[in-house]
Amino acid sequence: MAKITAHLTISLDGYVAGPDQSLENPMGTGGAMAMHAWHLGSSDPVDLAMAGVVMAPRGAYVMGRNMFGPVRGGWGDSDWTGWWGDEPPYHAPVFVLTHHEHDPIELTGTTFHFVTDFDSALEQAVAAAGDDTVTIAGGASAVRQGLERGVVDELLLSRAAVSLGAGESPFAGLQLTPTRVEVQVSPNATHEVYRF
Amino acid sequence: MAKITAHLTISLDGYVAGPDQSLENPMGTGGAMAMHAWHLGSSDPVDLAMAGVVMAPRGAYVMGRNMFGPVRGGWGDSDWTGWWGDEPPYHAPVFVLTHHEHDPIELTGTTFHFVTDFDSALEQAVAAAGDDTVTIAGGASAVRQGLERGVVDELLLSRAAVSLGAGESPFAGLQLTPTRVEVQVSPNATHEVYRF
Repeated sequence: MAKITAHLTISLDGYVAGPDQSLENPMGTGGAMAMHAWHLGSSDPVDLAMAGVVMAPRGAYVMGRNMFGPVRGGWGDSDWTGWWGDEPPYHAPVFVLTHHEHDPIELTGTTFHFVTDFDSALEQAVAAAGDDTVTIAGGASAVRQGLERGVVDELLLSRAAVSLGAGESPFAGLQLTPTRVEVQVSPNATHEVYRF
Repeated sequence: MAKITAHLTISLDGYVAGPDQSLENPMGTGGAMAMHAWHLGSSDPVDLAMAGVVMAPRGAYVMGRNMFGPVRGGWGDSDWTGWWGDEPPYHAPVFVLTHHEHDPIELTGTTFHFVTDFDSALEQAVAAAGDDTVTIAGGASAVRQGLERGVVDELLLSRAAVSLGAGESPFAGLQLTPTRVEVQVSPNATHEVYRF
């Protein structure tokens, strides 16, 4: 079966997005954008290497809806096709978790499928991936659903020197003791790989 | 004026103690004790060096009441004198934050003073320390009070591969962007020093 991984950029206080997420502030208020400096313009070799790990080819992805876009509630007549333009960086099927049904969106190299529950999304991703890795590409809720089911093999946390004070935690309610198998340090983040 | 530092052992999800703290489980339930493996029996040289940093002589300490002991509410006729026996490792005045007045406790090398508000405790600690460092020795609430006042110069976080799922955060409500100035990695913890 496919290996299942996940990655998140996380704050000192364990949040991946701050409070008050909105269309204008999709990461929430506070220093949430600053957390992402490690992959937004950093030329540090460690950051570049970790970005390379994150963006390495995968068999399929599972993604929370907020990772796909800022639209909340029903899709209505939204023509949103993701943050990434005509050719998203995934080049694989991406299964987006949403309570609201939506037809697939086929872009160059990547098709977004919309699925209403995590188990079904993961099952479809594993089937699509074959022997390749399936990655849960965030956000907090999608990764938490993987962690609480015990299906995540490896989690990469890129931790920035930012506290958000409140927000969304991938570990909410979960008491886990993974093994840290790798640490890479850059000026922008401490990148740690945990095995479960 | 004295430099003001703080140190905490912290979980992946940013908590220094788990939920349901009690006399039997002073750190709360879950893996909270496992978080402290780095200074409870570790012979790893990085852990030993960081423990040496934490226990290096200070001019004075400020300490939350839960760090001093498990007694909650009024002191009553408690004869509790701290976790450490007749000779605590501090060898300096320790100002313990408590809502309930208590006479000083003088032990070999260390006197515990009980103070009902943070500002007064810090003021007394700074006065007692002279040119030496004042350290806020935890827990979450005491360090948070220092952080929100902007008086902490350096914070050491020793982060263990444990998630607690809920608990006490030193950053609750605080949106900060300190500078990480040091990282030391052991098998038991990632030790990071932040400057504010």
